[in-house]
Amino acid sequence: MAVDGHEQRALQYEQTLMYGRYTQELGVYAREEAARLREDGRQRRSISERSPSLKLLEYEKGRCVKCRICAVHCQRFLMSRVGEDWIFLILLGLVMALVSFVMDFCIALLLQAQKWMYGGLDSNVVLQYLAWVTYPVVLISFSAGFTHIVAPQAAGSGIPEMKTILRGVVLKEYLTLKTFVAKVVGLTCALGSGLPLGKEGPFVHIASLCAALLCKFMSFFGGIYENESRNIEMLAAACAVGVGCCFAAPIGGVLFSIEVTSTFFAVRNYWRGFFAATFSAFIFRVLAVWNRDEETITALFKTRFRLDFPFDLQELPAFAVIGIASGFGGALFVYLNRLIVQFMRKQKTINKFLMKKRLLYPALVTLLISTLSFPPGFGQFMAGQLTQKETLVSFFDNRTWAKQGISEDFTFDTHLMAWKHPQANVFIILVIFIIMKFWMSALATTLPVPCGAFMPVFVIGAAFGRLVGESMAAWFPEGINTDGTIYPIVPGGYAVVGAAALSGAVTHTVSTAVIVFELTGQISHILPIMIAVILANAVAQSLQPSIYDSIIRIKKLPYLPELGWGHHEKYNIRVEDIMVRDVRYITLNSTYRDLQDILMIGNLKTVALVESADSMILLGSIERAQLQALLVQQVSRVRRQEVMRERAETERKRMSVASSPSSDDSSQKVNQEVRFQISTEESTFIPARPISPKPLKPALKRTSVAEKNIEIPTSPHDSGMGLKNLLCARPQTDVMESNNVELRQSKRVRISLLDDPDVEDDMTLGEIEEWEEQQLDEQVNFNSCKIDPAPFQLVERTSLHKTHTIFSLLGLDHAYVTSIGRLIGVVSLRELRKAIEGSMTVKGVKVRPPLASFRDSGTSGTSSESEATELHKLWDRHSSLSLPRDQQNHNTDNKTH
Amino acid sequence: MAVDGHEQRALQYEQTLMYGRYTQELGVYAREEAARLREDGRQRRSISERSPSLKLLEYEKGRCVKCRICAVHCQRFLMSRVGEDWIFLILLGLVMALVSFVMDFCIALLLQAQKWMYGGLDSNVVLQYLAWVTYPVVLISFSAGFTHIVAPQAAGSGIPEMKTILRGVVLKEYLTLKTFVAKVVGLTCALGSGLPLGKEGPFVHIASLCAALLCKFMSFFGGIYENESRNIEMLAAACAVGVGCCFAAPIGGVLFSIEVTSTFFAVRNYWRGFFAATFSAFIFRVLAVWNRDEETITALFKTRFRLDFPFDLQELPAFAVIGIASGFGGALFVYLNRLIVQFMRKQKTINKFLMKKRLLYPALVTLLISTLSFPPGFGQFMAGQLTQKETLVSFFDNRTWAKQGISEDFTFDTHLMAWKHPQANVFIILVIFIIMKFWMSALATTLPVPCGAFMPVFVIGAAFGRLVGESMAAWFPEGINTDGTIYPIVPGGYAVVGAAALSGAVTHTVSTAVIVFELTGQISHILPIMIAVILANAVAQSLQPSIYDSIIRIKKLPYLPELGWGHHEKYNIRVEDIMVRDVRYITLNSTYRDLQDILMIGNLKTVALVESADSMILLGSIERAQLQALLVQQVSRVRRQEVMRERAETERKRMSVASSPSSDDSSQKVNQEVRFQISTEESTFIPARPISPKPLKPALKRTSVAEKNIEIPTSPHDSGMGLKNLLCARPQTDVMESNNVELRQSKRVRISLLDDPDVEDDMTLGEIEEWEEQQLDEQVNFNSCKIDPAPFQLVERTSLHKTHTIFSLLGLDHAYVTSIGRLIGVVSLRELRKAIEGSMTVKGVKVRPPLASFRDSGTSGTSSESEATELHKLWDRHSSLSLPRDQQNHNTDNKTH
Repeated sequence: MAVDGHEQRALQYEQTLMYGRYTQELGVYAREEAARLREDGRQRRSISERSPSLKLLEYEKGRCVKCRICAVHCQRFLMSRVGEDWIFLILLGLVMALVSFVMDFCIALLLQAQKWMYGGLDSNVVLQYLAWVTYPVVLISFSAGFTHIVAPQAAGSGIPEMKTILRGVVLKEYLTLKTFVAKVVGLTCALGSGLPLGKEGPFVHIASLCAALLCKFMSFFGGIYENESRNIEMLAAACAVGVGCCFAAPIGGVLFSIEVTSTFFAVRNYWRGFFAATFSAFIFRVLAVWNRDEETITALFKTRFRLDFPFDLQELPAFAVIGIASGFGGALFVYLNRLIVQFMRKQKTINKFLMKKRLLYPALVTLLISTLSFPPGFGQFMAGQLTQKETLVSFFDNRTWAKQGISEDFTFDTHLMAWKHPQANVFIILVIFIIMKFWMSALATTLPVPCGAFMPVFVIGAAFGRLVGESMAAWFPEGINTDGTIYPIVPGGYAVVGAAALSGAVTHTVSTAVIVFELTGQISHILPIMIAVILANAVAQSLQPSIYDSIIRIKKLPYLPELGWGHHEKYNIRVEDIMVRDVRYITLNSTYRDLQDILMIGNLKTVALVESADSMILLGSIERAQLQALLVQQVSRVRRQEVMRERAETERKRMSVASSPSSDDSSQKVNQEVRFQISTEESTFIPARPISPKPLKPALKRTSVAEKNIEIPTSPHDSGMGLKNLLCARPQTDVMESNNVELRQSKRVRISLLDDPDVEDDMTLGEIEEWEEQQLDEQVNFNSCKIDPAPFQLVERTSLHKTHTIFSLLGLDHAYVTSIGRLIGVVSLRELRKAIEGSMTVKGVKVRPPLASFRDSGTSGTSSESEATELHKLWDRHSSLSLPRDQQNHNTDNKTH
Repeated sequence: MAVDGHEQRALQYEQTLMYGRYTQELGVYAREEAARLREDGRQRRSISERSPSLKLLEYEKGRCVKCRICAVHCQRFLMSRVGEDWIFLILLGLVMALVSFVMDFCIALLLQAQKWMYGGLDSNVVLQYLAWVTYPVVLISFSAGFTHIVAPQAAGSGIPEMKTILRGVVLKEYLTLKTFVAKVVGLTCALGSGLPLGKEGPFVHIASLCAALLCKFMSFFGGIYENESRNIEMLAAACAVGVGCCFAAPIGGVLFSIEVTSTFFAVRNYWRGFFAATFSAFIFRVLAVWNRDEETITALFKTRFRLDFPFDLQELPAFAVIGIASGFGGALFVYLNRLIVQFMRKQKTINKFLMKKRLLYPALVTLLISTLSFPPGFGQFMAGQLTQKETLVSFFDNRTWAKQGISEDFTFDTHLMAWKHPQANVFIILVIFIIMKFWMSALATTLPVPCGAFMPVFVIGAAFGRLVGESMAAWFPEGINTDGTIYPIVPGGYAVVGAAALSGAVTHTVSTAVIVFELTGQISHILPIMIAVILANAVAQSLQPSIYDSIIRIKKLPYLPELGWGHHEKYNIRVEDIMVRDVRYITLNSTYRDLQDILMIGNLKTVALVESADSMILLGSIERAQLQALLVQQVSRVRRQEVMRERAETERKRMSVASSPSSDDSSQKVNQEVRFQISTEESTFIPARPISPKPLKPALKRTSVAEKNIEIPTSPHDSGMGLKNLLCARPQTDVMESNNVELRQSKRVRISLLDDPDVEDDMTLGEIEEWEEQQLDEQVNFNSCKIDPAPFQLVERTSLHKTHTIFSLLGLDHAYVTSIGRLIGVVSLRELRKAIEGSMTVKGVKVRPPLASFRDSGTSGTSSESEATELHKLWDRHSSLSLPRDQQNHNTDNKTH
């Protein structure tokens, strides 16, 4: 459940690389890609040029040549087509359908095995109990252990992480083959254990993994697969495929994935999702037909409600009650889930113990849950022997279980038999089932295995709906409609409504309604379902975040809260009320000492570059790592040696001493060594000064080398999604970070550490310190520094609502607040988050400074006034006209009217 | 169909006000709104303060007081709640359901009347023909005439306009009460005529009108309804309601409206659409129940396909064929529709004639169509007597019409009887129906009446599907499935697939599938429908734009083409390839003459403000109107008189002549008059200089006055959506524009025009000219000028793909291209559109300059190099370090590797 330390750091680091940078990376990539495409074209051309000669040479082979030419043509055609989206999407759909089918098959096998063991040991209850309990404990422990060893990132749902990734944050190791293996194996075992766990969330993750791996695979053919924005689009489609092929629900899958992962959705990606999800769902169901499970393609949980009169209008209040109750239930579920996680975290002694024995917690929880659901034991009161699927099938059944409170005689249907108990009423069993499954599901979803919460919640919702339906059927045994034909109440319809409403409430989505239609293959209850889902959402959204947002907060992933149901006070807050006015900046005149000071102050991700402290005109922003590189470069030993050498040279010249050939040799050797050192340095840092002997095109050469070296860390292993990682890959940063720390703590230590015993250093430590002090006073040379030339800018009167929109649209991390070119503040995700959450409290707008609301009463003249004043400061530098300076004071006078 | 001149101008004008400006307007509005809210609060407080006294005073009335207090509380509660979104959405849903129901009722009446007339006159065919033809001609002519007189904007679909409005462009008069009336009445008459016209598009427009009017109505209660971004959100919800209550399809409505109106969709608006559309669909169907049309809530075109075996896997190729053929058919429909419009426009003689007799074209078209569908005539071969609804019901019928090619004996169902003809085969009739309806629909949708194309296309698609289905049924009379039970083919299922596919192809949407599920109440054919719709979309999107985009282009509304199916070459184009490098700008040092020159050059919407011509640092952008105001102000008569007066004053002082009281009086009078003039001037222009006698807080006072005056033009009439209009409302601009023209043409004319004969002008014309020349050489004072302080900026390496995303996300009109603060270019919607459309041709990327692709081969070093050079230019001003200048030349060397 927890994001481990390394990842969290990587995450924090990546947060800085969200906006503006993409332009450079894209630029670099576009160029490389174009080069590659041209290269391909050249190769193809050479093939086609060669083909006539081939033809001549192998003329005797006749048909074979034709075949070859044909093959070449085909290959060329395929190569040009392989870049097309639809090929990728078809492959993705196919792979996911196969994965889903195979996993379903394995899960069914595992579940059957448990039943078989349980059934075979019916002579001895103790043995039966042991078999019933040991089996899931082993499976869950294996799942947890396997996940932990192979890829801890695979634990949990995956939807929260995908939401974060689609927002533009790079989560390391989330989209690798290892994670894929861990997720698939772990999920199969976890679901095979029979615990109340779901597969929807993990499937979204698996589909995204598939897409990322497929991207990597396809990038062997064409360069287009390395483009980041394209990959993000493909990931969005993959999420839809995940849900779609999990439930064979393409439309619901697309909508659900949009709702849970996006804030703003590009409609041009819409068809991608539909295309891939439909294909996937199609293959998934076709496999079932070929496997002789089904005669034709139908829904997963097919219902057979009557079409002519699905429900009466007078039943609608009951559906509305289901919706509202589900809303509260959903919020309670999210709360309970979070409470369990937080409780486990707080209890330090338990925590410590569990950290040592990682598999103990899952095993204990599994033991508890399977003990309680042991069919001959307490399980007989909660249909313990049924799997999730069987439970759902029985809930969606047409027939009424109870009439006038007495349990009816069922036909010999084993599934329905589970709900019949000699001592207990059907209602009591349903209530017990709901209560037990509720906390069991909330508990089980906290386990560190790949698992989702959708399906368990869906089952609980169906149970609740069934309970209401049975009650209604008992209350109105003859149906409600009075005139003419008697239409008895269909409790199965209530179950469908309940399932959609509760799962909608927990996930804060409306599209569960569509999923339900596709799952059941019937749309006749559309209005009751929509009403219930919307009511459930209204209630749940005003009480708790969605389960995915809750997990995002628990895992401390970067997020931006949603502006939910009518927070119209947001329109009144402006950026100037929430921005940080004390911006760290560097100017074009800054010295290296200023740089050092700024780097030491805090852990800023980027520093603003302004023209001068007077004008404050924003020119761009520079990343911390770049500044560190500049600084390190300036006081590096290499430069010192160079300076030293120069000094020695002039010394020598002045002294006019005749040089012996041997000494020349040695200096040559040193030079060689130094140059070697340069190249290693270059591979780590971006050097600031030309050092190579050729003075004419030094910067060019060097930078291109540096660029190439920077690209080295991106192995094919994570080239797909780790693009943002490019410019400042971790290892580099680590080096720079450590250097900086050393720089801060003790320069001597740093020097001695860096010192290579082979190369003599002619300076004493005192000299070095003096030299460094002197170097720090020099002006910074920004030549070789990567500057983001257009960081995002807002004006101080942008409303919070608009700011939220822009931040979520563009996936920003921070934005500078400017006024006519002048930097006046900065807003980061943190401020925005505080502002939104602050104003969600009962007191209303919390973040505004005490006088902010007072200021609002000024007429609109104020704004143009302050603007004029701002401009004036600039303008003063250019003209000699004077303007009254006391305008601001008069503003206060003006306010009272 | 055509946007008239005034509107077009307004449109062009409004295009300038898209980005950046909102911040100011929002700021102003937020403040006003806050003020109003506080005012409300104060009132409420005063009410509650008063209420105890009320209690005391009217103590004897006992219960009545309690009632009153209760009422006050209720009122207060309502007032606070009326701002909530859900109240608005419920009202909107309710109103739209009522409108939809009443309209449906009226349309049914009108259609019945025609049938009744036709049926009553069956003794005489000529009379029957006259009645059959005259009725629709009269209705369509009335509809066209009424629409033309009341609100010409109401003609046509409305979806293209809504798409443009949701993109942020303000279309004048599109959301007014007049348009609402014209649309509702016109649509009712048009649909009542029985022509192949649809109501979906107009319903989207009607719902948006409802929302806009409701916003205006609700703004009496709370200030929140005047917020623009909120209104846009509400309009998005309204579009969903429009589709939703037209078909009683809430989910399909939401999805369809998203697909046709948005480029990027805010998921936070999702629930709004669902909420309102569900409520609306619910009420719409409940009204049918209460009207005793239905027994309970069911689908509009309920189908009764079998659930257990809806279709066989082997039927899927037939469904795929329907999809592909529908794709071609859809593209052809769009092409045909555009061709007709363009043909009518090109034929100047016809055009002139028709312009005079506006009603002739609709009447002639109606005459043609109704003549051809006259049931005893040609109509017998195309089921002419059936209405659209009856046609659809018969298409979706379960039973097979033909087996082995011979038309079967139908049961006595009047609808099905229409398809049986003694001489002709069912297949021939279907083919004739499809061909005739195809061109009829394409023609009818060009009529200048409120009408949509969705429903006619839907019917044609259903007919095509039915044709394929009947063929399949004739081909496989025993069904396809070989083992076991015989499942005959259901042609109705094919009709459903065809309807979804063709309407999806014409509108380029996938959600028609969902609409079909909701319309028929069955989801069993989900996979065939999805496959057909996706294939149809794939084919149609690669051939033609959607019908709505086609209309947008015909009407020349501002638009941005979509990046459709895999245009991955977009990733290679960068902003620097498409931007306009020759940017018009003004500097802080500019003189009024520069301003004049820039204003005369072209019709720029905004002008960039840079620090100086050397630094080119972008400070902001200024609207044309603002600059014009500055210029006019500088050379205005008022200023001239003031200067004159000052000169006279100094003259007088120097001359030291004793002044008589009478002359003092007269100067006082002149002053008075001048001041009066100032205030009128102020209400029209934004003055640039303080003229009021108080020198201390002049700017403040004046600007606030100016601000207030600017707000005057926004009558409550269009305050809702016309916010963007605020700062530069048309009347003002007109005045300024005309002034500018005069300025350009002849200053004397202007002066004589402006000259008030009452006030004596002491200057001769020569003096005035000299004075003006002198004034023009002064530096511009930007104090009172509204500057957009943060215009949107891109960097030159932003990819076209990303640029498109940002433009469509933020609804930009233009963006400046900067490099480290320096302005280097500008990209407007036009360039972007050209770039996207240029690269859609066969040749691939067209817009790139010849060397652009060559440049790509440079290593990534180039980028950082050029960046460094850019920075260097800046940096040079601050430091004296030198850098090799020939880097750019070396880049070419580097390329070959």
